[in-house]
Amino acid sequence: MLGLMQNWQLNVSKVIQYAQQNYGSQQIISQNYDDHITQLSYKEVEKRMRCLAWSLRNVLGLERGDVVATMAWNNIRHFEIWYAVMGSDMVCHTVNPRLFKDQIRYIINHAQDKYIFIERSFIPILKTLAHELATLKGIIVLTKDLDPTESDGFTIPFFCYEDLIGEQSIDEWPEIDENNACALCYTSGTTGNPKGVCFSQRALVLHAMAVNGGNFYGLTHNDTVLPVVPMFHANAWSNIFSAPMCGAKLVLPDRHLDPQSLYTLINSYQVTFSAGVPTVWLALLDYLNTHNGQLKTMTRIVIGGSACAASTIEAYEKQYNIKILHAWGMTEMSPIGTVSTIKPELQNKPYQEQLQFKAKQGIPIFTVEMKITDENGINITDDSTHSGHLMVRGPAIVATYFKQDTPVIDDDNYFKTGDIAIIDEAGYMQIRDRTKDLIKSGGEWISSIELENTALFHPGVAEAAAIAADHPKWGERPILLVVAEKECILDDKDILTTLKDHIVKWQLPDAIIVVDELPHTATGKLQKTVLREKYQMYLIDNNLI
Amino acid sequence: MLGLMQNWQLNVSKVIQYAQQNYGSQQIISQNYDDHITQLSYKEVEKRMRCLAWSLRNVLGLERGDVVATMAWNNIRHFEIWYAVMGSDMVCHTVNPRLFKDQIRYIINHAQDKYIFIERSFIPILKTLAHELATLKGIIVLTKDLDPTESDGFTIPFFCYEDLIGEQSIDEWPEIDENNACALCYTSGTTGNPKGVCFSQRALVLHAMAVNGGNFYGLTHNDTVLPVVPMFHANAWSNIFSAPMCGAKLVLPDRHLDPQSLYTLINSYQVTFSAGVPTVWLALLDYLNTHNGQLKTMTRIVIGGSACAASTIEAYEKQYNIKILHAWGMTEMSPIGTVSTIKPELQNKPYQEQLQFKAKQGIPIFTVEMKITDENGINITDDSTHSGHLMVRGPAIVATYFKQDTPVIDDDNYFKTGDIAIIDEAGYMQIRDRTKDLIKSGGEWISSIELENTALFHPGVAEAAAIAADHPKWGERPILLVVAEKECILDDKDILTTLKDHIVKWQLPDAIIVVDELPHTATGKLQKTVLREKYQMYLIDNNLI
Repeated sequence: MLGLMQNWQLNVSKVIQYAQQNYGSQQIISQNYDDHITQLSYKEVEKRMRCLAWSLRNVLGLERGDVVATMAWNNIRHFEIWYAVMGSDMVCHTVNPRLFKDQIRYIINHAQDKYIFIERSFIPILKTLAHELATLKGIIVLTKDLDPTESDGFTIPFFCYEDLIGEQSIDEWPEIDENNACALCYTSGTTGNPKGVCFSQRALVLHAMAVNGGNFYGLTHNDTVLPVVPMFHANAWSNIFSAPMCGAKLVLPDRHLDPQSLYTLINSYQVTFSAGVPTVWLALLDYLNTHNGQLKTMTRIVIGGSACAASTIEAYEKQYNIKILHAWGMTEMSPIGTVSTIKPELQNKPYQEQLQFKAKQGIPIFTVEMKITDENGINITDDSTHSGHLMVRGPAIVATYFKQDTPVIDDDNYFKTGDIAIIDEAGYMQIRDRTKDLIKSGGEWISSIELENTALFHPGVAEAAAIAADHPKWGERPILLVVAEKECILDDKDILTTLKDHIVKWQLPDAIIVVDELPHTATGKLQKTVLREKYQMYLIDNNLI
Repeated sequence: MLGLMQNWQLNVSKVIQYAQQNYGSQQIISQNYDDHITQLSYKEVEKRMRCLAWSLRNVLGLERGDVVATMAWNNIRHFEIWYAVMGSDMVCHTVNPRLFKDQIRYIINHAQDKYIFIERSFIPILKTLAHELATLKGIIVLTKDLDPTESDGFTIPFFCYEDLIGEQSIDEWPEIDENNACALCYTSGTTGNPKGVCFSQRALVLHAMAVNGGNFYGLTHNDTVLPVVPMFHANAWSNIFSAPMCGAKLVLPDRHLDPQSLYTLINSYQVTFSAGVPTVWLALLDYLNTHNGQLKTMTRIVIGGSACAASTIEAYEKQYNIKILHAWGMTEMSPIGTVSTIKPELQNKPYQEQLQFKAKQGIPIFTVEMKITDENGINITDDSTHSGHLMVRGPAIVATYFKQDTPVIDDDNYFKTGDIAIIDEAGYMQIRDRTKDLIKSGGEWISSIELENTALFHPGVAEAAAIAADHPKWGERPILLVVAEKECILDDKDILTTLKDHIVKWQLPDAIIVVDELPHTATGKLQKTVLREKYQMYLIDNNLI
């Protein structure tokens, strides 16, 4: 029997409509390419979005379902483009300008982008690919004045962004089937071509509602939100949706993610909430410490993208009185999966014990279901002593990659994350390793992440990578590559002593190698495949077996 | 183009699954029929729900889509029934035991209830209707021991609730189409038969997510929620869903809604959040004042159901440091439409000015859209000087009443609330009157609510009703009926003086009549139809024209 409720579709445009109707005077403050500050209200910006939507159809000739790319920083124009494109039943493809040129060519062609909205500074990247982008019909430069020379080398037309936002007649947002695609983001895998994750309107709205829950972001109209995580990274972790959904102010930093800029922005605009990767917050912490700085208005920071060290969490919480929301997710999950906040039953424990839980990946947001399975797919979620494959299910989680035929979900609709994880007795999920980074020694798994994190306890170690090397008896044995902190000289025995305090003997690496640097992908992920190729025979070649 | 996200349906059962998986040890504390206290964890209660779900199918022989009634207070068994029934793809029909007998017969037959879960104390109500409930196959008494005499007079079998919750084999919750019906609630209109509102799984889950937003309920796992609003009133304003969705504790008061009981419960279990109608909170306020009481753990109270006086809001906020969330809604809206909280731009105003806004109905939750239209259906939402018909739209708002063919929405999918409202410049909606209670004098509207509220400024007035009386010249003119406070003697000239301070002259009533009491419906609504019948000719008959 059907319920008799209204057929109201979950559309991204309804988020901005809500903001302009109920929080019309709240401000969006934005840095921009030329470093001036733009300040517009939700009422003003929503009108600009509808102007742009009109131009998408009537000037650029785009239709529902068309894919439009952006290559832009976190600024007000990029914010406008997201809503204008998604609200027009088109698909906004956020291109990460830090990808390798081959990857950028691949994803623009694979997505069949019709137009690209681009910062002036990224035009040179595109220029080298100008003749290899088959579907691209035109380029919109995020500026108010086109520079006539910047289209040199291109055969497709250039448009000035501000020309598309005129005083033309504008329409209301169309009603869109909530299962329609609205955003596309490619994951920069460490191997193979990037894979596209194609988000539905429904997924992004539900995800924004879920992360706004009180245990997680808990945003209100009293918040001022600074999205440090770039908008070309996994929907900027929903900040761009969650803030207008509750009438929060937005402060957009453009490309200025250095500690000095962030510090100034936070204190100038009384930012209360921010989100970004550990490296950004580590750098800011260092800045605060050396400049005797304070972030008095900031109440909470979401740290995610990669695991955050307990020491970083502690420093912000204890020294600066800022609550850290340690989050885990994947582009495939829209992206937030879990946040590590302290449950009521742990709140009476000493802070150092709580910190152990905060350093884990945490508790799923509502709408995310997790299970842990063993090698045979048997559910071992309730076994808090064994790790296994982390599987996730929910309305904002990928079912099939873009333009692939085969779904990536199992019979129960769970997506295999590729992570090895454990859920402790208190219900906190902890990532132990990427499946492909596990080291299998004599039939037993050894976690490369655990070895790496433990190596970092040594004050002289700046970065570490544990990988599997071939071994005639054990199949694989761990070896550890380390990079020294500036002006430090590392001694492998010394590192081994550090490891011995925390790691059982059979899991200790058979070799510790000091290197000058480790290879990374364009988005900063460690390229273990490269290391494996180079060091696979290390133990055998060096007679260390 | 479709997005490529998982097909994860919004099911009510996923709320309780989330609670048991992530907040398994959080407690539900419940008073019960015999006044003992039950305390179960989410883990335990969710298991009991699945046991009951098994019995619904295998003992009672119920099938997907069947309607099951409850006539019960706010206790743990009622909580279990809701999730067991809704989680089994059946429809939970909450019968209000305070309805008139004719109405109870009508709605049970209209809904075609197959079984009814009932408190022992309500059996006598049902007994008088025993032979008139055609579809009812059996009665489940909320007890652990059946009294063999209580089925006397019935021909259908009686079941003991606790017998249905055994140690039988139990299943996982089935996946349910989110558009399926899961709950049914009849509105007790002041005229005609009650109308059924049939909620979908999707509506109740989305509504719970929306009211949990940080500007509204903002529940977290640190909250302890006491739903004072009965579960037979409009889904208990979502408390029963919103609390488990974020792992909050629940404290269920059963039938004990008197101030002394609430006071004890709140302080015994450190309640932080509650929700109920103004009368309950007025009575508690009186109790606090006379007993020098404190509610130290309580941080916020949702007051709704009817408009809350500014003085009540002020007393709780100023004297007891409890934030009042003044809410407005309708059963037809699942039910929350708006909550009056103070927007950032008003937070610097003096408290007395803020109070004016708090006393209004407020700002819509995300997913609720509002507009105001004039007599001709023209949108006058942006005109903050004129009131009009309040129209609402959203995924948890009625489209069609149960078993009626004609949708109750306009071409743009808006439901006409029947209220006359205005939205002020700051975006706060304020109900001026029910459409049918407006008084039309010489083509101009006079608000009966405004007259009534103003009359209450007179310290001797306990209750007031303004209605339209026929007038040969003006069509209608207002007359005012007032009931005196205990031991007060009212003088109509005195009341008129009070009115004159606030009401423009042409809107003043042509007669003020002191009466002993005013007629009410079973749910306490003023029955103006009865008054109109009696007093329609009052001005003409008494030569007051």
